[in-house]
Amino acid sequence: MKVVVVVGGVGGARFLLGVKALLGLPPIGPGESEHEVTAVVNTGDDLWMHGLRICPDLDTCMYTLGGGIDPVRGWGLKDETWTVKNELAAYGADGEWFGLGDRDTATHLVRSRMLRAGYPLSDVTAALCHRWQPGVKLLPMTDDRVETHVVVDTPEGERKAIHFQEWWIRYKAELPAHSIVPVGAEEAKPGPGVLDAIAGADVILLAPSNPVVSVGTVLAVPGMREAIRKTAAPVVGLSPIIGGKAVRGMADACLSAIGVETSAAAVGQYYGSRQCSDEGVLDAWLVHTGESAEVPNVAVRAVPLLMTDVGATAEMARAALEMAGLTL
Amino acid sequence: MKVVVVVGGVGGARFLLGVKALLGLPPIGPGESEHEVTAVVNTGDDLWMHGLRICPDLDTCMYTLGGGIDPVRGWGLKDETWTVKNELAAYGADGEWFGLGDRDTATHLVRSRMLRAGYPLSDVTAALCHRWQPGVKLLPMTDDRVETHVVVDTPEGERKAIHFQEWWIRYKAELPAHSIVPVGAEEAKPGPGVLDAIAGADVILLAPSNPVVSVGTVLAVPGMREAIRKTAAPVVGLSPIIGGKAVRGMADACLSAIGVETSAAAVGQYYGSRQCSDEGVLDAWLVHTGESAEVPNVAVRAVPLLMTDVGATAEMARAALEMAGLTL
Repeated sequence: MKVVVVVGGVGGARFLLGVKALLGLPPIGPGESEHEVTAVVNTGDDLWMHGLRICPDLDTCMYTLGGGIDPVRGWGLKDETWTVKNELAAYGADGEWFGLGDRDTATHLVRSRMLRAGYPLSDVTAALCHRWQPGVKLLPMTDDRVETHVVVDTPEGERKAIHFQEWWIRYKAELPAHSIVPVGAEEAKPGPGVLDAIAGADVILLAPSNPVVSVGTVLAVPGMREAIRKTAAPVVGLSPIIGGKAVRGMADACLSAIGVETSAAAVGQYYGSRQCSDEGVLDAWLVHTGESAEVPNVAVRAVPLLMTDVGATAEMARAALEMAGLTL
Repeated sequence: MKVVVVVGGVGGARFLLGVKALLGLPPIGPGESEHEVTAVVNTGDDLWMHGLRICPDLDTCMYTLGGGIDPVRGWGLKDETWTVKNELAAYGADGEWFGLGDRDTATHLVRSRMLRAGYPLSDVTAALCHRWQPGVKLLPMTDDRVETHVVVDTPEGERKAIHFQEWWIRYKAELPAHSIVPVGAEEAKPGPGVLDAIAGADVILLAPSNPVVSVGTVLAVPGMREAIRKTAAPVVGLSPIIGGKAVRGMADACLSAIGVETSAAAVGQYYGSRQCSDEGVLDAWLVHTGESAEVPNVAVRAVPLLMTDVGATAEMARAALEMAGLTL
């Protein structure tokens, strides 16, 4: 079975652990399987900092699936140290709000050097994965530069666009966002292999990642939404909203910025049906047990959606495949 | 008094400690003084590695005079950690032979970012020194790219040019060198302020640094040798060779490569007299106590030249100023 999953960072990475487990792959690391999992990963969070190209979502997926992730923080590498960051601060370099670990720095050095040498991000990602062996094909949504910016009023009262990471980490998404814009998306092309993976998939899953700045950014790449709309495979989304709240992260702040209510129903409607709209991508929508959602022309089912452990997450993936009419 | 010192790395940095002490400045850090010390620093050892621009001699001077140097190793920062280096090795990145510390990495990140933003190395160096406050004006010999390469027969039997750092550190200068070439020197221009400092100096000192790959490389920048030859200030050199051996480092291997004997006399002759040759730069030459050297038209004096501590080094600087006819 060929499974394509559209993902962001922490939530997407954890969901992939469950997908792998369901398909009989060890959640962490590579493994033999008749099945193939491809992740189309958001790169809108990527940023240049200290001359390093940092890809938070790709790295979170790679580290999580490769067994390197710090299990407490959920991002970055375990056994991390912070010498480089402290020294940069001693030089007065900006960006102190960003958690740049020493181990992580090596990843960014390898990536930045390869990018500057002319390799596309997809090749660089494959090279980095050669070390981490995530057992999932991690495809950047695009090799082009797309950066999600957020228009905010700064604490100093100035309205300006800041990088998503600055809004998310430095300001903890507490500065009200007027709008969220994936800068560069209009000119971006889907990364190598992405459209083929979508066209050749047996099922497309939208992970319970941030619907605006993760899944939404992937869908903003021209050609991506159309490819998902026209693939023969069923498309099943999983709600990241439970009980009117984001399960993790601060998705509510992102949804508010684009005028979408923080509810499983509203997010399902935001993704929309492939059948009855010009923009929709869903055939089916999973919401959390005990909830209901009305999404026109989309099959909705309620199942437990808390990724408390790999087993529970695998059951979410199983429910999604069932919605797609697939059984293992 | 305006003192200009031509220096390389470890030896040059230690000599500068003595010069500062002699002039009443605290050896480490900034300090009030009527005197001004300018170091013209070799940049031929500089290299790109992992996408970072590394300037070993500038950093050794900056760290030594700024109180950051590791006193045991003599290079790099104290309290150093090696996480980045170990992680780079885990990715299979080359350059494992190079001692890239985590604290040091921050210096290179700041430098590389500024260079890529278009700032010349001289400005970048000034910015880095803003943190370290070396109390000496550290001027790169040039803002242009000059890299010393060494033509060797590799252990695999291949004759090729490798970067000086690779020869020096990876191969410990044990691969016989056929020639040593400062690549790019012909097109380089002296860095901002260098020629003015030389022209306006009260004395020019050639530190007891490597005569080939440190002082020799500085002199290889077009205009540098001429400026030193025509300045009104006396030029005094200090021999890095004592008893026919390099005091530190592996200067003998460099001297052999250019066909110069490892002796104080031969190095003095290699620098040559400003008076009687077309190329010479010396008025005076200091050799170690008990030694003698015949350098035509150059005043030679024997004094203790072991930089055992700052006091002994200050006495070397005092002897050099005396040779120049200067007293404090």
